[in-house]
Amino acid sequence: MDISTRITSRENPLVKQICALQTTTKARRESGLFILEGLRCCLDAYENNVSFKKLIISDGAAGKYAEDIGLLSGSAEQCISVTDELFKKMSDTDSPQGIMAVVSIPERKSNPLKNGRYIGLENIADPSNLGAISRTAEALGISGLLLCGCTDPYSPKALRASMGTLLRVPLYFTDDLVKTAEECGLRSIACVVDRNANSVQTVNFCDGDLLMIGNEANGLTPKTKLASKLSVTIPMSGRAESLNAAAAAAIVMWEMMR
Amino acid sequence: MDISTRITSRENPLVKQICALQTTTKARRESGLFILEGLRCCLDAYENNVSFKKLIISDGAAGKYAEDIGLLSGSAEQCISVTDELFKKMSDTDSPQGIMAVVSIPERKSNPLKNGRYIGLENIADPSNLGAISRTAEALGISGLLLCGCTDPYSPKALRASMGTLLRVPLYFTDDLVKTAEECGLRSIACVVDRNANSVQTVNFCDGDLLMIGNEANGLTPKTKLASKLSVTIPMSGRAESLNAAAAAAIVMWEMMR
Repeated sequence: MDISTRITSRENPLVKQICALQTTTKARRESGLFILEGLRCCLDAYENNVSFKKLIISDGAAGKYAEDIGLLSGSAEQCISVTDELFKKMSDTDSPQGIMAVVSIPERKSNPLKNGRYIGLENIADPSNLGAISRTAEALGISGLLLCGCTDPYSPKALRASMGTLLRVPLYFTDDLVKTAEECGLRSIACVVDRNANSVQTVNFCDGDLLMIGNEANGLTPKTKLASKLSVTIPMSGRAESLNAAAAAAIVMWEMMR
Repeated sequence: MDISTRITSRENPLVKQICALQTTTKARRESGLFILEGLRCCLDAYENNVSFKKLIISDGAAGKYAEDIGLLSGSAEQCISVTDELFKKMSDTDSPQGIMAVVSIPERKSNPLKNGRYIGLENIADPSNLGAISRTAEALGISGLLLCGCTDPYSPKALRASMGTLLRVPLYFTDDLVKTAEECGLRSIACVVDRNANSVQTVNFCDGDLLMIGNEANGLTPKTKLASKLSVTIPMSGRAESLNAAAAAAIVMWEMMR
């Protein structure tokens, strides 16, 4: 394996850039870059033909994962070796594996297709929820996720919770879920907590549906609920006031694809 | 409101005990006590007739939540006031509300009833998953959770993720899910990741079913899978190797109660 660059100083600009990419959405937005960390995550990306702007390897990992690193370095523009201590400074985890890549945020996709079945997420704030929803979406064969005001899908926490699926499930970005649905000929369906709404079981889902799920604490915005073509609910018993967003999403996606 | 005791020293044995109860399963097991933290959580417990061994109130909270604290103190054996700083030391959160209670772990329930619909959890390790599963279980009307080798349901993280439902959903503890099922006349059904198993949609669930879900990384133990009466799976497409445990649990509980 050819390691082209060696960095040892904490003051190196790349070290500072990586720390910023790990911690702030702003740094990722401005540079159009994000970080993939961990062997499994990088191998997954490699298999999906993601190319690495930089591949950063700690001294400890270089020996331990030599074969995999040889593979990964094939799709890296630049390989950089760092001390274990420096890697730890740049890592998002407490016990880093010693492998990370700097990757370009994918270009924004054009609009969703009329014959898919989509999930719209409005203001989902918790990266773990976004990741879990993406994981379920891929497993159940959802055509893509429309994100409106959600937490950054390229944060380390969201990517980790998604088990890498946020790099595979088609993502669309919009400021208005219902408006995008209308422009694309999709039927917008609001998921609400309301005993008077139709049970999700009674709806005949079909191709061209966009099922929308709202913020963890507040649900969908009144504007989105009002503008949607249909409202559905998950009938609940007991004292629970609502389901966790990822659990609710799992149930409605399951019904949608059933 | 009558505050009977004032504690100001970090060296006070109660302060040490509470820190231990917040952080270790061992301390909770040995003392039979656990901590409920936060106003909402304590009020929830109060409404469920949980009695507080001790109610601990920070100076900041005493003024802010006087009315609620007056209510809660009615079911407390002892009320203790502490400085905000001391409260923070004992708290499990970064921005504590200033209210916590020391509570007895409920007595273990006898066996589940033959006519209920139960979820069995084997070696669930993540307190957030256990909490989320409990929350879904209550919302969907599951009769109770059988726990085998799981993370402590009385840890602060599990209780928080459960939104207090772990204090309301009946919990049963066992060393062997299938054996308990047999002793109680329940049908044990293993949830597995296996393309050849029956789809969860094809099963006619009925009263007296125990649906078993395994560890996040490894699923159910081979012994449990082998001994179960039936195996079911959630059909998956895409590259996802499995669903998140809480998402899988939501889907199978939904099918069980549908």
